[in-house]
Amino acid sequence: MRTALTLVAAAILAGSGFVFSANARGVSPIAIVIHGGAGTITKADMTPAEDRAYRAELAEALQTGYAVLRQGGRAVDAVQAAIEVMELSPLFNAGRGAVFTRGGLNQLDAAIMDGATLNAGAVGAVQHVAHPIRLAYAVMTQSAHVMLVGQGAETFAWAHGFKFTPSAWFYTQRRWQAHIDGLKKLAAGSAGTPERLVSGRGWAFGTVGAVALDREGHIAAGTSTGGLTNKLDGRVGDSPIIGAGTYADDATCGASGTGTGEYFMRLDLTKSISDLMALKGWSLQKAADYMIHDRLVKLGGEDTGGVIALDAKGDIVTPFNTQGMYRGWIGADGRLTVKIYKDD
Amino acid sequence: MRTALTLVAAAILAGSGFVFSANARGVSPIAIVIHGGAGTITKADMTPAEDRAYRAELAEALQTGYAVLRQGGRAVDAVQAAIEVMELSPLFNAGRGAVFTRGGLNQLDAAIMDGATLNAGAVGAVQHVAHPIRLAYAVMTQSAHVMLVGQGAETFAWAHGFKFTPSAWFYTQRRWQAHIDGLKKLAAGSAGTPERLVSGRGWAFGTVGAVALDREGHIAAGTSTGGLTNKLDGRVGDSPIIGAGTYADDATCGASGTGTGEYFMRLDLTKSISDLMALKGWSLQKAADYMIHDRLVKLGGEDTGGVIALDAKGDIVTPFNTQGMYRGWIGADGRLTVKIYKDD
Repeated sequence: MRTALTLVAAAILAGSGFVFSANARGVSPIAIVIHGGAGTITKADMTPAEDRAYRAELAEALQTGYAVLRQGGRAVDAVQAAIEVMELSPLFNAGRGAVFTRGGLNQLDAAIMDGATLNAGAVGAVQHVAHPIRLAYAVMTQSAHVMLVGQGAETFAWAHGFKFTPSAWFYTQRRWQAHIDGLKKLAAGSAGTPERLVSGRGWAFGTVGAVALDREGHIAAGTSTGGLTNKLDGRVGDSPIIGAGTYADDATCGASGTGTGEYFMRLDLTKSISDLMALKGWSLQKAADYMIHDRLVKLGGEDTGGVIALDAKGDIVTPFNTQGMYRGWIGADGRLTVKIYKDD
Repeated sequence: MRTALTLVAAAILAGSGFVFSANARGVSPIAIVIHGGAGTITKADMTPAEDRAYRAELAEALQTGYAVLRQGGRAVDAVQAAIEVMELSPLFNAGRGAVFTRGGLNQLDAAIMDGATLNAGAVGAVQHVAHPIRLAYAVMTQSAHVMLVGQGAETFAWAHGFKFTPSAWFYTQRRWQAHIDGLKKLAAGSAGTPERLVSGRGWAFGTVGAVALDREGHIAAGTSTGGLTNKLDGRVGDSPIIGAGTYADDATCGASGTGTGEYFMRLDLTKSISDLMALKGWSLQKAADYMIHDRLVKLGGEDTGGVIALDAKGDIVTPFNTQGMYRGWIGADGRLTVKIYKDD
């Protein structure tokens, strides 16, 4: 477990503009970008302590992933390492601290993709795995499949040496309260018959994701989430859907989304960014901006989400149409940046 | 239930080149194309009676879907109607007659997408719903979500008036034998630790799908499957993944895939066809051929699958890189065609 000292050190680094030394032997620039969810995140809603805590966690996740890259490690490993930090943190809606389903469960989704091979692994609606991103990686590397869900995914986990984590471990009072508040707001008479969620806005906090570029020029992307507060039991969002919330292809980019996943799924948002680059020759920035600010807004409206992405040059983009997005990156220049609000 | 007489009549129609009268009031041509799976399907492996039975079922599914279109109905309804015929038939690996998972279960996947709105619904790993395509439609129209899986999907089904179907209903001796034969072929020592499937070829028979164009010019696509014989419990393939096995967009095309789904998922195969048309201006034929004969073969090799697709002009394509694909269509000319083998 991380210590308070580490958090403080990370917070200092995050604010200091500290520059990591890039390894001179690398043939490719190395870079990593992460997000901790997009939504109605404004300075007014956050205490200074909360603001600091989020920045510290983001910085620690970045440093953890970047350390893998600096040591010559693979992008997929950097992505997994960064996401595991955020899955451990109760601040984010992934692993510990996940939101609750309509039925009061923590059901977790995750995916990882290796842009070098287009190999991918994903899990949906798992309930007893502390690090869903690690299970997604195991599906990618140790099964013939891309995606496993529910009980079958947990059977696979057990067979591959994962320990089962009790439901209580994922519990946080804050997410439970949001669950109860949400249930109260549901339309009268809908208790027995799941209907449209009352709130279509601001319900999608805290999904985490990472995209990395390693010294070999390989790109990987990963995403992990508890989904939406009050989602129906068994709901699978965009995060574990290859091409929707998670995609990576060395030839174009890697990307991880966060927001109201149903729109990302219908657009295949991350694959669309890749296709715009490959088929139209658009830059990463233009392609990602178009999907978030034009296509996504036209389909779902403002306040529907954001995406992080990077390409083989190490260019990094983080467009979002919400009030804020927890985000950070260490680019080819080795500089660490962490941001939360739109005008951060 | 269909009668033997209907089957015979359908078989006669299928072989006769019977031309349906197109409705003169339509502003858009109407058309429908279906598949019943791709794989190592050769004339030598089929008895004349089996050959006739498959052609009759395909013809009946086409006629059922086409009747919806002729009466001015919607493409989504035509797709659902055609697929329900094949889900009922024990010949196809969808609904009744589905293959068995590693754990001896029938776990069903399905998706439907409306190209007019990009609305979509999908279910994964459901076990007690006779018509998964109908449940996918309910997810699209009666929930805030795109995808539900496992127990949660069944809870939703129950709340929305679906009857639960006992597991025994899905059983066929033929699929159970394939399951047992597959288990015997698994590598020694792998019983407790799911590993790569021994057979990567010919295991993907019988997924069903339909794509339709209605008089309003709207396109819809749907897919339903039991997945792969001996798949791990909880495995979700490409069929219910929007953009992988199922996609529809009025602006480009509708498409439904069949084959080794893991490759379709990593390529987002059906969305890629749409993107090649939208972003490169390729014809439907060129885009679909490229994805099946170039991209899919490069990633997974020959014998990995096929796709059916149609566009707003009513053009229909059915490329596959396998020995055969159960397929049929009624195009803008109203002519019914049913084929099975490569050189049919």
